[in-house]
Amino acid sequence: MKRKNYEDALKPLKAKLAGMGRWAKQRGERIVVLFEGRDTAGKSGAINAIADAMNPRQCHIVALPTPSERERGQWYFQRYVPYLPSAGEVVLFDRSWYNRAGVERVMGFCTEAQYRTFLCQAPEFERLLVDDGIRLFKYWLTVDQEEQEKRFAERAADPLKQWKLSPVDMQAREKYAEYGAARDAMLGATHSTHAPWTLVDFNDQRLGRLTLIDHLLRNVPEGEIPAQPQVLPPLSGPALKETFGGPLVPIPPYQAGDDR
Amino acid sequence: MKRKNYEDALKPLKAKLAGMGRWAKQRGERIVVLFEGRDTAGKSGAINAIADAMNPRQCHIVALPTPSERERGQWYFQRYVPYLPSAGEVVLFDRSWYNRAGVERVMGFCTEAQYRTFLCQAPEFERLLVDDGIRLFKYWLTVDQEEQEKRFAERAADPLKQWKLSPVDMQAREKYAEYGAARDAMLGATHSTHAPWTLVDFNDQRLGRLTLIDHLLRNVPEGEIPAQPQVLPPLSGPALKETFGGPLVPIPPYQAGDDR
Amino acid sequence: MKRKNYEDALKPLKAKLAGMGRWAKQRGERIVVLFEGRDTAGKSGAINAIADAMNPRQCHIVALPTPSERERGQWYFQRYVPYLPSAGEVVLFDRSWYNRAGVERVMGFCTEAQYRTFLCQAPEFERLLVDDGIRLFKYWLTVDQEEQEKRFAERAADPLKQWKLSPVDMQAREKYAEYGAARDAMLGATHSTHAPWTLVDFNDQRLGRLTLIDHLLRNVPEGEIPAQPQVLPPLSGPALKETFGGPLVPIPPYQAGDDR
Amino acid sequence: MKRKNYEDALKPLKAKLAGMGRWAKQRGERIVVLFEGRDTAGKSGAINAIADAMNPRQCHIVALPTPSERERGQWYFQRYVPYLPSAGEVVLFDRSWYNRAGVERVMGFCTEAQYRTFLCQAPEFERLLVDDGIRLFKYWLTVDQEEQEKRFAERAADPLKQWKLSPVDMQAREKYAEYGAARDAMLGATHSTHAPWTLVDFNDQRLGRLTLIDHLLRNVPEGEIPAQPQVLPPLSGPALKETFGGPLVPIPPYQAGDDR
Repeated sequence: MKRKNYEDALKPLKAKLAGMGRWAKQRGERIVVLFEGRDTAGKSGAINAIADAMNPRQCHIVALPTPSERERGQWYFQRYVPYLPSAGEVVLFDRSWYNRAGVERVMGFCTEAQYRTFLCQAPEFERLLVDDGIRLFKYWLTVDQEEQEKRFAERAADPLKQWKLSPVDMQAREKYAEYGAARDAMLGATHSTHAPWTLVDFNDQRLGRLTLIDHLLRNVPEGEIPAQPQVLPPLSGPALKETFGGPLVPIPPYQAGDDR
Repeated sequence: MKRKNYEDALKPLKAKLAGMGRWAKQRGERIVVLFEGRDTAGKSGAINAIADAMNPRQCHIVALPTPSERERGQWYFQRYVPYLPSAGEVVLFDRSWYNRAGVERVMGFCTEAQYRTFLCQAPEFERLLVDDGIRLFKYWLTVDQEEQEKRFAERAADPLKQWKLSPVDMQAREKYAEYGAARDAMLGATHSTHAPWTLVDFNDQRLGRLTLIDHLLRNVPEGEIPAQPQVLPPLSGPALKETFGGPLVPIPPYQAGDDR
Repeated sequence: MKRKNYEDALKPLKAKLAGMGRWAKQRGERIVVLFEGRDTAGKSGAINAIADAMNPRQCHIVALPTPSERERGQWYFQRYVPYLPSAGEVVLFDRSWYNRAGVERVMGFCTEAQYRTFLCQAPEFERLLVDDGIRLFKYWLTVDQEEQEKRFAERAADPLKQWKLSPVDMQAREKYAEYGAARDAMLGATHSTHAPWTLVDFNDQRLGRLTLIDHLLRNVPEGEIPAQPQVLPPLSGPALKETFGGPLVPIPPYQAGDDR
Repeated sequence: MKRKNYEDALKPLKAKLAGMGRWAKQRGERIVVLFEGRDTAGKSGAINAIADAMNPRQCHIVALPTPSERERGQWYFQRYVPYLPSAGEVVLFDRSWYNRAGVERVMGFCTEAQYRTFLCQAPEFERLLVDDGIRLFKYWLTVDQEEQEKRFAERAADPLKQWKLSPVDMQAREKYAEYGAARDAMLGATHSTHAPWTLVDFNDQRLGRLTLIDHLLRNVPEGEIPAQPQVLPPLSGPALKETFGGPLVPIPPYQAGDDR
C-alpha cells in the first residue's frame, strides 16, 4: 500500500480513535489490547499508530523486559497485573503473557509443565478481567517467511534498526514452522468467547494497521464520542516574543554540514 | 523548514543516536534528558524523534501524571527518583521536577516556601546525580506567542489534538509574560556548571529538533559507536507461508468506505 | 490461657515454623496466609506470633491502606497481586481481598454488583494461585460479642491502643449480627476444595493462636526441616571493646525519672 | 536489666511514642529513623519496641534485601527513596544507605570510588531531606565483642534464631576492629549539624532500647499529643454469640501433646 493512500485512510481512523479515548475517559471504560505475532510482523508500528492518536497520559504502551530472578519465582501473570488499566485508560501490550506459549515454548525457556499450566490459566485469568468489565482485544499479526526475511535483511543493513535484531531473533528465523505450530496450539487453547483472538495479515504493514485499527473500532460498542468544538477567545493583548532576562539565550540553529 | 529537508537532515542524526545507544549500553552509561518549555513548544515531538532511533527497552519516556495526595506529602523529588536510569539506559523526561518552578509557580499550585525550597534543592539534587555519573541534559524550548497561538488554534480545530488542550493550558495563554519571568527566575537559580540549561528556539519545530539533537550528540563525549555489519546466513530451506491449523484465519483486509 | 502455659506451648510451634521457613526456602515453596475476622479478634497478634519465628526477609506482613482513587478504578484484585510471594517466601495478609465481602459489604462501601462479582471471582482467582503452586490458607477468627466489647473497652481506655479504634470500628460494634451474616454468605460462596476456609475460636487469643499455628503446620506437608547445628570457631584473638576514634561516644544510659 | 524493670520503664515511653504518632499524623510530620550497628547489636529489637507502640499503617519498617542487578546500576540512593515517609508517617530503617560505609566497605562489596562518592553524597542527600522538613535520626548501636560473641553463640544454638546467622555474619566476627574503624571513618564524614549521629550502648539491649527511645522522644519537639479519652456508648442490645449459618464451625482448640 502506498504511503499516501495509507495516510489518507488512516486519518479518519485516528479521529475515531481519539473519539474512543474521549469515550473511555468519560465512561471510565478500560481497554486492553494485546499485540502478538512473529518478529518483524509489525507490532510496534501498529501500536504507535494507535498511541499517536491518543493522550499519552491515558494510553500506555507496555513492553516488559525479560523477567528478573524474583519475578521468575512468582505467579506467572503477576508481573503483568500492575500494568492493567484503571478507569478511563487504554493499555497496549507489545507482547504479553502469551510469551510463554510463543518464544518461551519454541526456544525452550519454560518447562512443559509451565507451558501446560499457562494454557489452562490464560483463559481463566482473562475471564476475570473481562468479567470485571475490562474490554480485552487479542491480535496476532501474520507474516509470510519471505516477507519476514526481507525485513530481517533490512534490519541487518540499517544501522538504525540493528537493535531490533537480537540473537534470539536470529535463531527464530530457522524456526518459522515451529512458531506457526506453537501459535496454532495457543489459538486452540486460548481462543474463547469471552476473549477471542483476531488474526490480521501484516504482509503489507500499512494495510495491516488499517485492518487492525478498523476492527478494534468496530468492536468498541458506541465507542466514539464526537470532539467538542473548542473556541479560543482572542488574546487580551498583543502576542509577545520570547525575551530573556538573563545571560542565557537560545543556541544557534542547526546547520547541515556544520562542524562546530 | 520543509519536511523533506528535515528528514534528510534527521537521518544521519538518528544514526548517531543509535550509536549513542550502543555506546551507553556497552559502557553502562546513564543519560537523563529533561524537556521543558511552554505549551505547544514541541517537547513531545522532540522526544519522539529521539526515542524513534533507539531501543524502547533502553530508552524510556517519562511523563508523570499530577501527583497523588500521598505523593504531595512526600519529599518533592521522591516521585521522580524511581524513573532515573540504570546502567545503559536513557531517560527522556517530558516535563520534570521543574514543574514546580513553571506551571506550579505561575498558576499558584505551590506555596512560596515550596517554591523557594525547590530552587535551592534542584541544583543540589542534580549534583548528586551528576556526581554519581549520570549525564544530565536540561533543555528549555522557546516559542514566541504568535507561533504559540497558531498552534493552540490548530489544536482547537483538530479533533485529533484536542486532548492536548487542557483547561490549564487555556489559562496559560494569557500568562505568556509570567511564564517567561518564571523561566528567567528558574534559569537564574538552577543554571549551574554541573547541570547547565540549554535554550533551543522551537519557533520552527523541525529545525528546533535538529538543533537539540545535534547539541545533545555533541555533548556526549565520544558517544558514538559504529554499527557492526550483521550478516544473515541464508535460510536452510524454502521460505514458508503462514498456514493455520485451526479454524481461525486472518480477517479480511480493510477497505476504505467499507461499511461492514 | 495463662501466659506461662501459652509460652511453653508456643515454643515448639515456633521451632516448627522456623523449620517451615527453611523448607520453603530450600524448596522454593510459596505460602500465603489470609487472616480475616471481626475487629479485635486477634489478627495481628496471630500474625506477629508467626512472623516472630521467621526471617523478616522471607516472611512479609501485608496490611494495605484503603485503596486510592486510581486503585478503585482497577480490577479489584490488582492491588493485592504485587504482594504475592516469590519462591521461598511466606506472605501474611492482615485482612485481604475479602474486605469486599466483609466491611465493604456491611458498611455499604461497594455496590451490590461489585459484591456479586467478587463472590464469583474470589474462588477463580484463588484457583489460579493454587494451581500455580502457591499454598493458600484462609483463616477466619471468631469472637463472641461480649469478649469483643471487653476488648473495645480496653482499647478505649489504653492510650497505647487507641489507634486501633477507628470510627468504622465504632459503627461496626452495632453491626455484630450483620457481620456474622456477611461472613456466612462469604463462606458459602468462597469455601472451596482448592481454597478452604478454616474457622478458629479466638475468644481466648492465646489458645486461638496456638490452634491456628498448629493447624497451619499440620497442613504444610512435610514442611519441617530440622535446623543444622552451627558451630562457631573460636575467635583468633581476644574479644575487643568498642572504642571510638572520634569525638562521638555513646550517650548516657536512660535513667527512670530522669528529667534531662 | 531485668525484664520486669524494663517493662515498667518502657510503658510510659510507649505512651509517649503513641503520642508522637498522634502528633505526626495531626501535623503531617515525617520522621525517619536509621538503625545501624554491628550484627547482634539489637537493631530489630529496638525497632520492634518502637513499632509496637504505633499504628502499622503509620509506622513502617524498611529492611531492604540485597540490591538487584538493575538496582546496582542506579544512583546509589535510588532504591531507598521510594520508602521515605509521606505526611504523617514514621519510617524505621533496619540498616540503611550506610551499608556502603559499613558491610560493603569492610567486606569489599563496593569499590574505593563508590565508597568515596558515598561519603560525600550522604550528607548532601540527607540535607535535602532535612531541608524538606523530614526529621531524620541516625542511631549507631554499640556492643563489645565479648557480648557479641555471646549473642552469636546463642543464635548458633537456638534453632529459632539460626536464620540470623548468615555467612557474611560469620566472616564479620573476625573483623570487629575493621568494622570499628569503618564506623569511625563514617562518623567522621557523615556526622553533621543537620543530620547528627547518636551512639547508644547496647551491651544491655533493654537498657539500650530505653536510652534510644528516650533520646528520640526528647528530640521530637513538643511531639507528644495526649490521648483523647474515648467513650463507648452501651450496646443497644444484648451481646451476641458467634453463630454459623453453614456447615463450617471453628476447629477444635489446640491441645499440647495432641497427635491429631
